[in-house]
Formats: sequence, C-alpha cells, structure tokens
Amino acid sequence: MEEGTRDTEKRMNKTILLASRPQGMPTPDNFKLVEAEMPRPQEGEVLIRTLYLSVDPYMRGRMNDRKSYVPPFALNEPITGGVVAEVVESRSDAFAAGDIVTGLLPWQLYTAAKGDHAEVTSVRKVDPRLAPVSTALGILGMPGLTAYFGLLDIGQPAPGETVVVSGAAGAVGTLVCQIAKIKGSRVVGIAGSDEKNQYLTDELGVEAAVNYKTSIDLRSALKDACPGGVDVYFDNVGGEVSDAVLTLINNRARIVICGQISLYNLEQPDTGPRVQPSLLVKSALMQGFIVSDYAARFGEAFGQLGRWVAEGKLKYAESIVEGFENAPQAFLGLFAGENLGKQLVKVGD
Amino acid sequence: MEEGTRDTEKRMNKTILLASRPQGMPTPDNFKLVEAEMPRPQEGEVLIRTLYLSVDPYMRGRMNDRKSYVPPFALNEPITGGVVAEVVESRSDAFAAGDIVTGLLPWQLYTAAKGDHAEVTSVRKVDPRLAPVSTALGILGMPGLTAYFGLLDIGQPAPGETVVVSGAAGAVGTLVCQIAKIKGSRVVGIAGSDEKNQYLTDELGVEAAVNYKTSIDLRSALKDACPGGVDVYFDNVGGEVSDAVLTLINNRARIVICGQISLYNLEQPDTGPRVQPSLLVKSALMQGFIVSDYAARFGEAFGQLGRWVAEGKLKYAESIVEGFENAPQAFLGLFAGENLGKQLVKVGD
Repeated sequence: MEEGTRDTEKRMNKTILLASRPQGMPTPDNFKLVEAEMPRPQEGEVLIRTLYLSVDPYMRGRMNDRKSYVPPFALNEPITGGVVAEVVESRSDAFAAGDIVTGLLPWQLYTAAKGDHAEVTSVRKVDPRLAPVSTALGILGMPGLTAYFGLLDIGQPAPGETVVVSGAAGAVGTLVCQIAKIKGSRVVGIAGSDEKNQYLTDELGVEAAVNYKTSIDLRSALKDACPGGVDVYFDNVGGEVSDAVLTLINNRARIVICGQISLYNLEQPDTGPRVQPSLLVKSALMQGFIVSDYAARFGEAFGQLGRWVAEGKLKYAESIVEGFENAPQAFLGLFAGENLGKQLVKVGD
Repeated sequence: MEEGTRDTEKRMNKTILLASRPQGMPTPDNFKLVEAEMPRPQEGEVLIRTLYLSVDPYMRGRMNDRKSYVPPFALNEPITGGVVAEVVESRSDAFAAGDIVTGLLPWQLYTAAKGDHAEVTSVRKVDPRLAPVSTALGILGMPGLTAYFGLLDIGQPAPGETVVVSGAAGAVGTLVCQIAKIKGSRVVGIAGSDEKNQYLTDELGVEAAVNYKTSIDLRSALKDACPGGVDVYFDNVGGEVSDAVLTLINNRARIVICGQISLYNLEQPDTGPRVQPSLLVKSALMQGFIVSDYAARFGEAFGQLGRWVAEGKLKYAESIVEGFENAPQAFLGLFAGENLGKQLVKVGD
C-alpha cells in the first residue's frame, strides 16, 4: 500500500475542463487542459488510468446551459463522457489492478471511481477476450445499444423492407446498417463522402449509399435508391436530409429519431416543412429515444451484440485520434463528419 | 313491386357533384347541385333515402387531385361521405323497407346501395333503439372510432396524466375529452370560442379550456393550464397551436396526429419549428393514423362506445344544418369552426 501510494504520487494527472459555453459551433477555446491533483481512491473505490475517451455528438447538448435529458456540463469542471480505463489501484473487493473497466467518467488521465452503477463516477468491467477493449465505447457500448434498441424496438424492420439510415457511416449508423441487413431488410445509407459510401456498400453490404453533399437533388437520388419507398428511417442527422427522406415514406413507416447532429450547433431553433401531414396520411410513427430508456434491457442487447460480433456478423470501424490533449479536436471533428465509425481518443496503452 | 316501382318514379333525385377543385379554401362554386336519375336497385341491392349527411374535415383532402389514403373525388361526380338513410325498397334478404342504414355513400337524395361491406356503395344497419340514428355519423360512427383508437391505442392516457386536445369542441375532440376523463386523466381542451370552451368545462367537465383565438400568448396560457406539462397531445388542428403545445411535452409524451385542419387549405406546404429535437430529448412518440387502420377492431370500439353512451358517460353534441342543398355550406363551416360537436346536414325525416 505504501509502495502504491508513492507510485501514485509520482504520476501527473491532467483534466480537460469546459472553459466556456459555445455559441453555435464549438471551438478549441471552449475547452481547457489543466493539471489536476492525483485522486486518492477511498475505501470501495479504484484508481483508474484512462486508455480511451469517447467523443459523441450528444455531448454538444451538455455544453449548453439548458436542461435536457442529461444535465449540462458545469463551467470549469471536467467534461465527462464514455471512458475505457485500466485499474491501477483497487480498494474495492470487486476489482483488481489490471482490470479493464468502462463508465461515464471525467476526461482525466486518472480518476478515482466507484464500482457502483448508481454513481456517476462508476465503472463496470470489460471482458478483453471478447473484442478490443475500445469496443466498450462503440459496438459493445452506448452506440451499440443505441443502434440495437432504436432499430429493433422502434424501427422494427421486416425482411424485404427498405431501411434508410442517415449518418450511416457514424458509430451508430454503421451498426444500424448491419443489424438491418441481419434482419433481412434492404438498406440505404446516407453519408457525406464517397469514401464513407464505399465503405457502406463494399464492407457493410448495404444496397445503396447516397452522398448528401454531392447529390444535386437529394430527394431524387434517394428516390432512385428506394424504388419501393421507405419503411424505416433511422435518423442521426435531421434537417434537410430528413426533409428529403420524409417525402418518400410508405404507409405505416417508422421514423426513429436517434440524433439530429445537423441542428446541434444552430444558434436559433430551425424551421422546416411540417411533418405532421405526412405522418397523418401515411399512418406513420416518429419516435425519439435515448438509450437509457432501455436500461432494463441492456443485458439482452449486450448478449446479442456480443454473439453477432463473435459470429463475424457485425463489423466495427474505429477512427482513432492519439493523445489526451487532442480530445477536443476529435470532438469537433464529429461535426465536420471526419469520423468513419466510432470516433475515439487513445490516451494510454 | 309494381306499386313500389311507380312510387319510385314519382320521386325526384338530386346529387351534389364536385364541380371544380379548390385552390386553397373551398367555395360554394366548387360544388354543383343537379337533378339525377332515380336509381333502380338491382337484385341484392336496396334503394335508400338519405336522412343525414356527414361533413368531415378529411373530405377536403379528397377534393385535391392528389393520391392520399383515400382516392380523390372525381370531377363532375358526386361527393361521397358518411350518410344515414332509410331503406325505401329492398331487393336484399338482409334488409327490409324502413331499416335505418349507414355507409360511405354519394351525396344524393336516393341511392341504390349494396349490403356488402366490400363495396363503396354499401351499407350496414343502424339500431335506432340505441341512440338517435344521426349518431351513426358521430359518436357511434367514424368520429367515435377515431377518438377511441387514437386516444386509447396511441395516446394511452394514464390516470392523473395531462391530456391536451386541439379542436376539442369538434366531433372527435368532444369525444376524446370525455374518454380521457373516463380514463382518469386531467384534460385541457383547446378551441376557438368562449362558447365552445364553456361547453367543454361546464358540460364535459374538462379541467381547463384555452381559447387559441383570444389568447395573446398561447404557450403561456397552455402552460398555466398544464402546470405538470403535457403527457398526451391529441391533435386535430396542427400549425401554430401544435407548436405551442409541443414546447410543453413531458418525457415519454405521446402525440396523436388525428387531423391538421389548420393546414388543409394552404396552397403551399407549411413550415414550422422542427419537431424532431423535442421528440428526441423527451423520448416522445408522434404517430399519425386513420381510422381504417383499426378496421379489425371496430366491433370492440362500437361495443364500448355504446356502453358508455348507455351509461350516460359519453355525451354527444350535434350541429345540424337543414336541407340537402346546404351541405356545401355546412362543409365550408368546418373550416370556420362553426360547429360544436358533430356537424350534420339533415336531409329528410
């Protein structure tokens, strides 16, 4: 114990704070990297060393001082998000040094965390034999659960139906495309580069991929890609992409509102064509959700996602930025569509 | 039979045709009243004499030459809609002269109709002992079924939840308010006159009624009326009324899209605040429907609605315009909000 304590004191801790709230698109100035005290785990806690940070579009909402489904980040307090870490010191019977864990934790090199799920700074173990530990932030983490429940519980794709996915090359979108394929649906992805679309068609096997940035007439391109109309629309993006998709929905279509990344940085609420008339004449459903709505069923989803990974039915793509100090840039890159698959920040080995 | 035939020939038939398609708000010129041949029922058919015509907002959509969930009215062909009629001559074993029937039928004084539900010009019997026969076009007809399935199947109001109803004083709205009360919910109606709102509070017992025409700040008036937020929004109206309601929805709210009467006469698709961000952060559901989606369960609904009427738990209001020739005016009055409860046209005794 004495040895461990001395070792801890030699380490240097760093944290990334929310320095200011963005107006519109965030900038690096909204973040501040500072040195921090090395945390000392209390009885029942573990000291963890961060290996990977997750950057996710929903975190943009937490940068605003506005009540939402998760509380806003506090000014001059650490950003928190998905983290994969290694236990370096354990004062909990449930963990041993060397365990790999994940949780919603501060952006820090070192954190003292509880093993209790009820706490914000709590962690659960990751099984490193199943897949690379980084997947605990992707396919076997929040994005995986989000794709699983949003598509299967709300979208309910049937064999032969057409499923359109916006943000199709992102962390959630790549999984939605593949799960819809597993269910026998016809999948059309929408993404913002030819490279991404090639990945969708060549690697993930979607039937068609539409580049929303280069399509002169997006609706017409989508219509060509969806000759039988749209039965399920899994929406990560919102805005004009959705306007085009919604003109093509079939009777009893299901529209899954998972994200609206095109709107997150607008300074004024956006307006667009009203959706209610289309929903009415098509007897269509539009449903928003957040993954924690399904917390009681996470076990089911982890089990199924793990089996699909083990069977080689689900591929995962990761875009990795190296270095703790580059986490803000990785986050900002999400809004420029820089990532293919899950965007991660690698902090340690 | 000879006697009956001669009697038929003495009668004069009239019909109301779609003379032209409206641009924006319909006018009387879009309709044309003409004399018509007296139909002669074939074997298996009945000759019926119209007693009541129903005018319904959804019929506006059928005046456009645009594919929707029901085919458009044909130019220079009779308008068709809900009708209650008396059998004056039967060539069907299933009907006798004097039977009261209802169906989706042409706007005519006399029609030859089949007893086969699969046909457009088909009828089913109405039990005149249950309630006035006009209710087959209201509480015990399409509006009743619409309120029943939309509210209970999609809205799913729980005891103590707040249910907001737009178009609350209309044919469907008055029933939704009452069924929500039966289910133990707190009901807030939105209507366009103080007289209507007084009916909602004094006769139907809703907790609050908001006049959208006289409220200077509709959102603020609704907020006062819904201190606990909105759990279910049953929308007959759309547009800015809905914009205001949607700012007040609770987590896991259900938004039932039943009608959008404020938009039916617009010449251009309307724009408004995008709804997806609210649905997302509130895990809320928005679902459109048409009553025929529930055709397999009409028996269940008729049974329950009939029991509630018999028990005095459901009141019905009717606004009746006298005279076949006034059917177009009665229809146009819907868009001016002239009706309290179900708008009917009385054609015969």
